[in-house]
Amino acid sequence: MSVLLHPQLKTDTFFVKNLALCRVLLMNNALYPWVILVPMREHLKEITDLTADDYALLCKEIHSMCTHMQDMWAPDKMNIGALGNMVSQLHIHLIARFEKDAAWPKPVWGQASQPYTKDQAQEVIQRLA
Amino acid sequence: MSVLLHPQLKTDTFFVKNLALCRVLLMNNALYPWVILVPMREHLKEITDLTADDYALLCKEIHSMCTHMQDMWAPDKMNIGALGNMVSQLHIHLIARFEKDAAWPKPVWGQASQPYTKDQAQEVIQRLA
Repeated sequence: MSVLLHPQLKTDTFFVKNLALCRVLLMNNALYPWVILVPMREHLKEITDLTADDYALLCKEIHSMCTHMQDMWAPDKMNIGALGNMVSQLHIHLIARFEKDAAWPKPVWGQASQPYTKDQAQEVIQRLA
Repeated sequence: MSVLLHPQLKTDTFFVKNLALCRVLLMNNALYPWVILVPMREHLKEITDLTADDYALLCKEIHSMCTHMQDMWAPDKMNIGALGNMVSQLHIHLIARFEKDAAWPKPVWGQASQPYTKDQAQEVIQRLA
């Protein structure tokens, strides 16, 4: 794929795998299971920039990843969001939240962060993939 | 419809209209154009609680409302999110963001709030509906 990933997304995450539309990334923050989906098409900023087919695909991939994360972590709540105020390339956050996590009940953006150890990251990436 | 709206959603918003699946609400915060979509089905907490047909409908209504808000306000960025850490009833936020708004580039949750005047609210609701 020739579509480029925003440098900030590259810096903050680990590569997990590629789906039909999206690249799956794991946020390098051990405080929350936090996945980012990036539709690999050029010049996307808003969901309304996608073609109808790609939007349907995005919705499907969000749903599948949400189910997968619920199966893996049994969170109290899934948080799903497309913000992009800082990184304009369209990307969707999926975060498994727990009533005992570091930021609950606040949203995780702008809250504490703690990088994974190499082993931790490896394990989560393998289970996610 | 017999599905009940969570009291907090009722308190914080104005009713705009009903779509095929969702009730459209306007957040009573004049600092940001902020719409909430509530799928009117019982016992929904996560998007994965929806039937396949209802999920497709939700995706369609999110897309339409997003387009509508872009047409109305020409925002710098749309923020879309399903969080629900405080209010468990499934609801989707659509917020038109501007680089000059009160919270930019932060997410709006937990930031400053300013109620609409009656006239302001009336006008926005009419344009949205």
